[in-house]
Amino acid sequence: MKTYTKYLTFNTKNRRELIKITKDVSQAVEESGVQEGLCLVSAMHLTASIIIQDDEEGLHEDIWKWLENLAPFKPDYNHHKTGEDNADAHLKNLLTHLQVVLPITKGRLDLGPWQEIFYAEYDGQRPKRVIIKIIGV
Amino acid sequence: MKTYTKYLTFNTKNRRELIKITKDVSQAVEESGVQEGLCLVSAMHLTASIIIQDDEEGLHEDIWKWLENLAPFKPDYNHHKTGEDNADAHLKNLLTHLQVVLPITKGRLDLGPWQEIFYAEYDGQRPKRVIIKIIGV
Amino acid sequence: MKTYTKYLTFNTKNRRELIKITKDVSQAVEESGVQEGLCLVSAMHLTASIIIQDDEEGLHEDIWKWLENLAPFKPDYNHHKTGEDNADAHLKNLLTHLQVVLPITKGRLDLGPWQEIFYAEYDGQRPKRVIIKIIGV
Repeated sequence: MKTYTKYLTFNTKNRRELIKITKDVSQAVEESGVQEGLCLVSAMHLTASIIIQDDEEGLHEDIWKWLENLAPFKPDYNHHKTGEDNADAHLKNLLTHLQVVLPITKGRLDLGPWQEIFYAEYDGQRPKRVIIKIIGV
Repeated sequence: MKTYTKYLTFNTKNRRELIKITKDVSQAVEESGVQEGLCLVSAMHLTASIIIQDDEEGLHEDIWKWLENLAPFKPDYNHHKTGEDNADAHLKNLLTHLQVVLPITKGRLDLGPWQEIFYAEYDGQRPKRVIIKIIGV
Repeated sequence: MKTYTKYLTFNTKNRRELIKITKDVSQAVEESGVQEGLCLVSAMHLTASIIIQDDEEGLHEDIWKWLENLAPFKPDYNHHKTGEDNADAHLKNLLTHLQVVLPITKGRLDLGPWQEIFYAEYDGQRPKRVIIKIIGV
């Protein structure tokens, strides 16, 4: 059995960003030498997520608008009494889940035709990490 | 270590459906010969999910009503400028997550007493795939 | 390859509670002897979740308020025709996802600096189980 660990670091220009990381994850799978197994991709912070979606700009705009509607950025969260201003980012993380587990088949990510992997940053402009953990044969 | 891969294809009659697939997944676990391990069940499309819930019709009605309220089908999404009309299905997928990872113990899915596995279709009436990936011993 | 299974049981005093279980999961990882692998932590009921968040009281208040707003406790769910009164708890489970998969590196949970594991109970005051399933080397 093989295992492989890789960390990615993101320091986004904007507070909120979607960054396509399918190639980074594919490269980690290649480096692992795993032919059949599972690949966990998980945010190591509480204010970002890993999501699988379509690489279509209009849809991304819809997603941001929807997230802002269901977990709005606003001043009056209790969490902000600590000096933070990012409670909305914690809620957006809860809503979209922090992670995905991807199948590896014949040495490659076994994704559907339009499935792209995105790092969803909800409170960026500082270095934040993602872990890729691969196990298999 | 053993690994096993199986694909299920669904072509639903209705646009939105919940289909119980506990037996299909259990059968894949049996076919794998894995006694102790993990079983990933993941939608390969961006407009469907795998969820674990109760097989109770009233609850399913509540879930559909709730999903429609939080991620409504409507014309004015940006994604629809591409000719699509299914942005709501992408948002419903994000809300409910595309996948589950299930424990296998003593050769069987180790689920709680009321946990049933469902394929949640949000934009059907065409063939769509689900991957089952099992690893363990 | 090693595998390890452990069940935790919670019987909360209140209907809704967040219980920090990072130590319980860390202990299971230690007991497993796994150095590199994956650790699934999953609710075995349909009305509770495992979430990763910050151990900050104000944020927890924000999370409860947010959950109650998006998946409110109220009488008029169809599920309640069965005699139940917990449809909101099923929806809260769907919203926050039932489970997480955690990386194990060098014999320890490989979490980010503020990531704590919580059992989120949405309909407690009765014994409910969580499964921890670890696989790796």
